[in-house]
Amino acid sequence: MKLICRQNDLNSNLSLVSRAVPSRPTHPILSNVLLIADEETQRLSLTGFDLSLGIRTSFEAQVDEGGSFTLPAKLLNDIISRLPDGDISLDDRAGEAIATITSASGKYTVRGMGPEEFPELPEIEEGEVINLPPEALIAGLKGTLFATSPDETKQVLTGVHLKVQQDSLEFAATDGHRLAVVETAKFTEKESEESDIEPADSPITFELTVPARALREIEKMVGMGQSTESVVLHLDQGQIVFEWVNQRLTTRTLDGQYPNYRQLLPRTFERLITLERKSLLAAVERIAVLADQKNNILKCSINADNQEVTLSVDAKEVGSGTESLPAQISGESIDIAFNVKYLIDILKTAAASEIQMQLNDATAPVIIKPLGGVNATFLVMPVQLRA
Amino acid sequence: MKLICRQNDLNSNLSLVSRAVPSRPTHPILSNVLLIADEETQRLSLTGFDLSLGIRTSFEAQVDEGGSFTLPAKLLNDIISRLPDGDISLDDRAGEAIATITSASGKYTVRGMGPEEFPELPEIEEGEVINLPPEALIAGLKGTLFATSPDETKQVLTGVHLKVQQDSLEFAATDGHRLAVVETAKFTEKESEESDIEPADSPITFELTVPARALREIEKMVGMGQSTESVVLHLDQGQIVFEWVNQRLTTRTLDGQYPNYRQLLPRTFERLITLERKSLLAAVERIAVLADQKNNILKCSINADNQEVTLSVDAKEVGSGTESLPAQISGESIDIAFNVKYLIDILKTAAASEIQMQLNDATAPVIIKPLGGVNATFLVMPVQLRA
Repeated sequence: MKLICRQNDLNSNLSLVSRAVPSRPTHPILSNVLLIADEETQRLSLTGFDLSLGIRTSFEAQVDEGGSFTLPAKLLNDIISRLPDGDISLDDRAGEAIATITSASGKYTVRGMGPEEFPELPEIEEGEVINLPPEALIAGLKGTLFATSPDETKQVLTGVHLKVQQDSLEFAATDGHRLAVVETAKFTEKESEESDIEPADSPITFELTVPARALREIEKMVGMGQSTESVVLHLDQGQIVFEWVNQRLTTRTLDGQYPNYRQLLPRTFERLITLERKSLLAAVERIAVLADQKNNILKCSINADNQEVTLSVDAKEVGSGTESLPAQISGESIDIAFNVKYLIDILKTAAASEIQMQLNDATAPVIIKPLGGVNATFLVMPVQLRA
Repeated sequence: MKLICRQNDLNSNLSLVSRAVPSRPTHPILSNVLLIADEETQRLSLTGFDLSLGIRTSFEAQVDEGGSFTLPAKLLNDIISRLPDGDISLDDRAGEAIATITSASGKYTVRGMGPEEFPELPEIEEGEVINLPPEALIAGLKGTLFATSPDETKQVLTGVHLKVQQDSLEFAATDGHRLAVVETAKFTEKESEESDIEPADSPITFELTVPARALREIEKMVGMGQSTESVVLHLDQGQIVFEWVNQRLTTRTLDGQYPNYRQLLPRTFERLITLERKSLLAAVERIAVLADQKNNILKCSINADNQEVTLSVDAKEVGSGTESLPAQISGESIDIAFNVKYLIDILKTAAASEIQMQLNDATAPVIIKPLGGVNATFLVMPVQLRA
């Protein structure tokens, strides 16, 4: 393997694939990144893989001699990121398991390993294919990832559930306390030569649960990118692959039955409250300072007569706080209480200038929806107020 | 106490004095901030004090009723920082030990304590007075603070030593491995009515050692400020006070004899090497990646024939690296080794486009000086190279 590439390209692609390199690898080879130089395409591809999450990228390079090799990801990253922008040459002295890196000012050798032991990234030959605009993918992820459970013992709840329907892709996440559901804007199936006759009632064609960790990486990757090119999702039992520009992320899916969350969503409501989102968020964040001193519970007094919502907390030994906001309220006045942290998460995520709270009584699930923008539904359970 | 002030003013001043509020106070009152509203001057002053470090600031307010009160610093800070900019009213209901904070949207009560128990900030009536331009103070602190010892058992070495001379102020710090000395530009003594006849050989008129922690606060305070007004230092046995604009920082000094560091500085050198600072720093930082895998030792080969300095490290099992830089070298070629971390600290601090290394042999102390700008001297001990 012998090639010349730009420091800038190598550096940014290395940081990207390094995210899939485990810090405590089960096999030594997994702490390495796989480099494959292709003489024909004149490209260098990099791969990081922890056996569950894999990231592969490729970029242009002047490949004088094709080949493949693996190098310690962290050390390589640390050296390359500190080199000045400009040409870097990479050369593995065949048989010696040592790569030489030469830049304008210096010369480094790094001990590596042959590519033989590096595990193959899974490929999906068949299965479902979806093309999704980057902004739809980001909206779906941003709207649900916060509600996944961080508790590894909770299995499927640590992931986001994806449901492919005829003309939409639904994202859902719940940790048992709150639920987030985002239906993305229409997507187009990959151009197919046959024109299938689709059934009219939008049946679910495929569903799977993807680990939050992998989705956070996809969110960063697509969020940082400049391209408006569609992200291609290949879905299969046990595996999902995201392809975007010259990047490819593959991950195992989570086993187990995802809860039937749709049945949790109430269909009728006795009260509708419309509020300005940013003012509400700011007020809740202030009240949270005092709620934090108590039990994180915020009391929300909905006053239909004054068309006003009053938030309050009384942390006896420390102090108390109240905030009032104008609101459009239909239905009768009511007092209801929430865990302040859940409310903040939802209000931060629901990216619209106004939100609507839909509720029945002080003990039934409450729905919060952004008005306009993404089609998102957030469910939060109220907290019992002591008399 | 009853007053109206701007959120902006209260917020920034609260964050400032909060730095002197201990997170684990020895007395409950010390976790509070002291508020003093002065009806006559129409100013609100805030004080935080941990019995060693004290910070007091004041700012304009509409004081309807003077008085003083103490409130929990963290809670107050958390609430005030989240309030929107605009007027805030503060009102302590006398006798109830509760303050009411009212802003446009909300109302908060916070339980506090009377001011009686809050300890008095030390005052210096007599002692030495120095006026120092902000940039001279910053240069002195920036050039020495990094070399103080973080080890609390090392007593005076955890501070910066200040030496007042007739027409300069000298800052010095050492942790036993390296030494930093900065002589600041001339300063003017506070205008005095008498015109003393000063001795000609610049004797030391005063010296003391100030804890690094307090100096880091002063560095931030003055570094953030916009004013070019001089900082006034009041020095006395056991105490130093910095006054600047409407801010006042007071701290205990460190007891104990400071080492006679001047005698460590060699006066003659066999070799002088001038290098471009930024290129050297970048090269050392790259080599550090590999040195970090070994013992942090960097080999520095000074080649007088080629007028070139070559940095290298050989971490056998991991890899190796070399970097070469042009240099102006007078004296004979030599190999010398350094702890890479000490070199990086000095090169980051020595803010000049070129630095000069002054050395005798591979085992004697090495001096590094920035060329131009601040009058700073850094001493670092070389490391023994194994044959």
